[in-house]
Amino acid sequence: MNILIVYAHPEPRSLNGSLKNFSMAVLERAGHRVQVSDLYAMQWKATADAGDFLEHEPETRLRYPAASGEAFANGTQAPEIAAEQAKLVWADVVIFQFPLWWFSMPAILKGWVDRVFAAGFAYNVGEHTPHRYGDRYGEGTLEGKRAMVIMTVGGREAHYGPRGIDGPIEDLLFPIQHGIFFYPGMTVLPPFVVYSADRLKPEGYTAIEAALEQRLVTLATTEPVAYRVQNHGDYEMPGLALKVGLEGKTQGFAMHTRDSSPCIDEPAS
Amino acid sequence: MNILIVYAHPEPRSLNGSLKNFSMAVLERAGHRVQVSDLYAMQWKATADAGDFLEHEPETRLRYPAASGEAFANGTQAPEIAAEQAKLVWADVVIFQFPLWWFSMPAILKGWVDRVFAAGFAYNVGEHTPHRYGDRYGEGTLEGKRAMVIMTVGGREAHYGPRGIDGPIEDLLFPIQHGIFFYPGMTVLPPFVVYSADRLKPEGYTAIEAALEQRLVTLATTEPVAYRVQNHGDYEMPGLALKVGLEGKTQGFAMHTRDSSPCIDEPAS
Repeated sequence: MNILIVYAHPEPRSLNGSLKNFSMAVLERAGHRVQVSDLYAMQWKATADAGDFLEHEPETRLRYPAASGEAFANGTQAPEIAAEQAKLVWADVVIFQFPLWWFSMPAILKGWVDRVFAAGFAYNVGEHTPHRYGDRYGEGTLEGKRAMVIMTVGGREAHYGPRGIDGPIEDLLFPIQHGIFFYPGMTVLPPFVVYSADRLKPEGYTAIEAALEQRLVTLATTEPVAYRVQNHGDYEMPGLALKVGLEGKTQGFAMHTRDSSPCIDEPAS
Repeated sequence: MNILIVYAHPEPRSLNGSLKNFSMAVLERAGHRVQVSDLYAMQWKATADAGDFLEHEPETRLRYPAASGEAFANGTQAPEIAAEQAKLVWADVVIFQFPLWWFSMPAILKGWVDRVFAAGFAYNVGEHTPHRYGDRYGEGTLEGKRAMVIMTVGGREAHYGPRGIDGPIEDLLFPIQHGIFFYPGMTVLPPFVVYSADRLKPEGYTAIEAALEQRLVTLATTEPVAYRVQNHGDYEMPGLALKVGLEGKTQGFAMHTRDSSPCIDEPAS
């Protein structure tokens, strides 16, 4: 398979750096092709602005989504944006690797999403009528690809449990997994999370590599998170509210996952 | 009161730009002092890296949290970081104003948080023992200040309702309101959200200004979101799981809000 790792950490000599190198080695040894977008090494511009569009005229009011759609359609995006989109199209599997900072991604990675996920590419795709609100949430440009978070967390695992004070990890990741991966069509694999990363002792590292390797060699077969596809009948139109009764006993983000279902985009095995 | 608006939009001639100017005028007319950190105008560096610490030596492995704590303690932070911290200390009310991009803040604003919310300032504050896990979630350096999101959203309000496909807006804002505002001690006011911002007609704008003005003139008296203070007895130690039974009928993020309680940091009126 073709695997893209979008990697955001400022220090190559870090736990994240080691795990990124380890992942590359494991995946290449297994016969996959790997590309890494090492955002710090690339000095990726994090800030979305008029400079992202080669033909934007300064005297014109910038409407970022519209300008993004135009530049995508006309081939006038900043070249580094088009290059990252080409990597996404190339990839069968997309991995975001990052340390959790303030309960989300580092700014440099958010800025990769803000700029690369252009209108016409990652959103505003498909028919928008009273009967259909685009190809999104399980459908779209990136449909059929698998996506996964590899993440280090400074805090303790218990704090991110179902009753933990920081909030359940799957809910904290919902804006990324559902809102960024699933929205343009990707199938989402459960995240690989290393907790208490700042307190890791050298003797704990080997077990982390072993667990990560297990996840990497099963990328093609791991059961995905069962997010509900927008256009498969679970949502009312035009409001896109989940049909009453489908939520079972869940509330909030959890209702957008089919509890005990087989995987979404994969044929039954 | 002293009011800090941290503002992130690339286009001054935008709905966000107009609302920011309107807020400044309303607040100043009401006798408040207002500072605006206009991150795009300031060309704020979004990316947290070794350049944030004046005395970091390139040959030393960068551990961002530790380096941040040291630089904060020693007065060797990049001057623009210290300047933003001083604004936070000065403020009685902190407003984040931004367009919702990919279910979170624009990267430039996330990068303001990543860099300004230093160790020793916004986290790693207070006693860390088996009996107490720091001053955070309702306590800390920014305790007593009020914080609020003013946000535009391209999508429709129904999509962000309790059953909406994008997820409930209060859950999408939890990582910001609970994880960024409440964590270092700020009291959180309900957000002011403008939906369908890309489809706004001129005749709709006046009503938005009127609703925003109502929120701005009641900043001091608006009932806050009732997030649970970490050290007030609702959480088990050392795991910081919410004590069984306190969640009522809620799950996920919602259990960290006391449902029918009076406000958190205000005296009973």
